Amino acid sequence: MVKTYNKGYRAERELVHLLYKKGYAVIRTPRSGRIALPSPDIIAIKNKKTIAIECKYRSKPFKMSKDQINELLEWKKRANCDVLIAWKIPRYDWFFIPIQYIHNGNVNKNTLKNALTIDDL
Amino acid sequence: MVKTYNKGYRAERELVHLLYKKGYAVIRTPRSGRIALPSPDIIAIKNKKTIAIECKYRSKPFKMSKDQINELLEWKKRANCDVLIAWKIPRYDWFFIPIQYIHNGNVNKNTLKNALTIDDL
Repeated sequence: MVKTYNKGYRAERELVHLLYKKGYAVIRTPRSGRIALPSPDIIAIKNKKTIAIECKYRSKPFKMSKDQINELLEWKKRANCDVLIAWKIPRYDWFFIPIQYIHNGNVNKNTLKNALTIDDL
Repeated sequence: MVKTYNKGYRAERELVHLLYKKGYAVIRTPRSGRIALPSPDIIAIKNKKTIAIECKYRSKPFKMSKDQINELLEWKKRANCDVLIAWKIPRYDWFFIPIQYIHNGNVNKNTLKNALTIDDL
């Protein structure tokens, strides 16, 4: 469990630097020290284009909680920005799924049809 | 010193909630756990309008380091957003000074002429 957390953490940090290299201004909220307000893992902004990213490091399809989806939708509503679920499949790529394509919290092969890649960002 | 840090921290947290109440989506970077990339203390976004905020809790005029100013300017360049120095004077209000009005890092009474208040945000 600790191992998965560390790998997920490392992947997330790599994504931050990847976005920075692409010219984005990037900010990351660590797990600890969270304020009691909904916030995605990463905010990246490039020339007024903002993307809010929730990172998931998972080898298999997964389900997001209703609460987490609602928090992200609240963020989307306030900021009026793109909110993406970044699914990192171990030893494979990142897939960025716009939150509007996620139904009932299910993230699976079907959802990947609407995924963006890092080159699209 | 610890006391000042705590007061500054509390003030910063209050500002986060103030912005949230004004309808902003807000994210805060804690001091610890920073990624090795320039990042302001707070990012607030409301309907595509983004402000990046560096908080300073000081009873007297102060000077910001060249490095910190440059980091914030790099952020401004990438994100193309407003970057504000939020000066909280103890037992008084917050003053939000757009970074372009800060010369040689000096934040003082003179700079306050160009400051915004919370109502302007």
